[in-house]
Amino acid sequence: MKGEESMQRENCKVQNAGETEWIYLNDRFVPRAQAMISVFDHGFLYGDGVFETLRVYRGQIFQMKRHLERLTTSCDLIGLSLPIPKSQWPALLSESLRRNDLSDASLRITISRGEGEIGLDPSLCSRPTVVIMAKPFKPYPADYRQNGVHLALASIRRNPIAAQPPEVKSLSFLNNILAKHEAAQAGCFDALMLNMNGLLTECTTSNVFFVRQGQLCTPSTECGILRGVTRDVVITLAKEEGLSVVEGSFSLEQLLDTEECFLTNTGMEVMPVSQVDGHCIGGSCPGVWTVKLHQLFQANLNRFVDG
Amino acid sequence: MKGEESMQRENCKVQNAGETEWIYLNDRFVPRAQAMISVFDHGFLYGDGVFETLRVYRGQIFQMKRHLERLTTSCDLIGLSLPIPKSQWPALLSESLRRNDLSDASLRITISRGEGEIGLDPSLCSRPTVVIMAKPFKPYPADYRQNGVHLALASIRRNPIAAQPPEVKSLSFLNNILAKHEAAQAGCFDALMLNMNGLLTECTTSNVFFVRQGQLCTPSTECGILRGVTRDVVITLAKEEGLSVVEGSFSLEQLLDTEECFLTNTGMEVMPVSQVDGHCIGGSCPGVWTVKLHQLFQANLNRFVDG
Repeated sequence: MKGEESMQRENCKVQNAGETEWIYLNDRFVPRAQAMISVFDHGFLYGDGVFETLRVYRGQIFQMKRHLERLTTSCDLIGLSLPIPKSQWPALLSESLRRNDLSDASLRITISRGEGEIGLDPSLCSRPTVVIMAKPFKPYPADYRQNGVHLALASIRRNPIAAQPPEVKSLSFLNNILAKHEAAQAGCFDALMLNMNGLLTECTTSNVFFVRQGQLCTPSTECGILRGVTRDVVITLAKEEGLSVVEGSFSLEQLLDTEECFLTNTGMEVMPVSQVDGHCIGGSCPGVWTVKLHQLFQANLNRFVDG
Repeated sequence: MKGEESMQRENCKVQNAGETEWIYLNDRFVPRAQAMISVFDHGFLYGDGVFETLRVYRGQIFQMKRHLERLTTSCDLIGLSLPIPKSQWPALLSESLRRNDLSDASLRITISRGEGEIGLDPSLCSRPTVVIMAKPFKPYPADYRQNGVHLALASIRRNPIAAQPPEVKSLSFLNNILAKHEAAQAGCFDALMLNMNGLLTECTTSNVFFVRQGQLCTPSTECGILRGVTRDVVITLAKEEGLSVVEGSFSLEQLLDTEECFLTNTGMEVMPVSQVDGHCIGGSCPGVWTVKLHQLFQANLNRFVDG
């Protein structure tokens, strides 16, 4: 028989579920109101850090290993030691979902250089800051999937690989934010960014695909993109379906002269695009392959969850 | 006659001076340990914000108006409303110095988009975060001024104007941090960054000058630099002294074939450079104009303090 104190604790736990938002910060879970960092954190002072966003389906994490690999790559590329061993992440992510009573969710992992005196030298910071946030997944409006979204053409160019490699998913995200502002001003869902050579790269948080002459085309990593986890899954599914996939260098003109276009990221999955820079794309939207690939994506989800 | 309580307060105040570090955060001064922000601050999540660093000489702020103008420009360029009217900044900066009992100091102003849910949309954040930090000024080692500093040549290129305008002094500072890492790895004071066309821009936190064929040369803003406040003061002083100043596009080869080279920023003032990418610069270091311009800078300080 349970004692009164124990029952009170359980009641308290049930009451908390869904009310208190729990954030993992450095070494423990804290309520959101206590998830505070110093203004001397170099993530805040200099955007010195990296992040990942993961999607959770019915408690299972989509491509967890790939996301954690990319997190490690991002850390390596900016000389930041991942402060938590890879083996501990699955339990931490699960606990983050459990504490927040979430099963269809988004997880955001943030790792910054940590607190330190003013200056660019990483040795000023003795310990990285680790944050895990878990949020209920908010589906996009059904209208987006039925009629497609509109993209602006950003005047701001994507950060070139030589200056700030887009493969580092860094906290220094201003390049993307400036493009997102342009999308908002144009009343568009997102903005398509070109590289310094005027070739297609990606949108502010998603990869772009289009179907042209029976081939599925998408900008290659050499064009300066973040290699999306969902992008790779869609490429795999398309190839399995017998669709030829070309990762290459493409112009805006090639995209505009296309039969269909879609975006991919961990939240959007496969999102049809009906307009780019005011030009209608293809005939009907969503296009045949867009619908098929999204169906395949959903039908094959079990193959791609691993956490 | 003072009451005991009043005297205790004064004692406490004296005791605090130099012990507690006071940080201005949003609307009040707080001790450093309480200068905490939410992990949802978009300055932390996305490097979405701007900053300025100001130098204080004997309680007087160097080029305060120019720094505040540049802060406003940075805010405007990323669509962020400066949350404190310009007229209130001088009193806030003075109070920051007074609270920390500082007269020779550095001030760092940080403005971020503020706390908000995850996402790039600025409307997620209702109020910008404002931070003012005041630090005792730490002079550079005398050896640097006597013998000059060494610069590495960064393999990372300076963010192009078209992607992330260097004139925005933003919290998304990873481009500069990556170059600074290269400097550290090469055992150098700082790293010189080229733009995407292979032309000189600046170092990670300073502008570069060199003297060539009787002219003072420095990369123009079109090359992709932050137009330094100290840079402009040095250009003014050089012109007053009859030295011809060329703001233009320069190659590394032109810099290496120079008589003398120096850096400017608000902390360095005029800092001689003796080596770039392993090549010795000019004959003796510091060069004649480097010494003269630094002397003029110090002799004319009173003209350039305004806060």
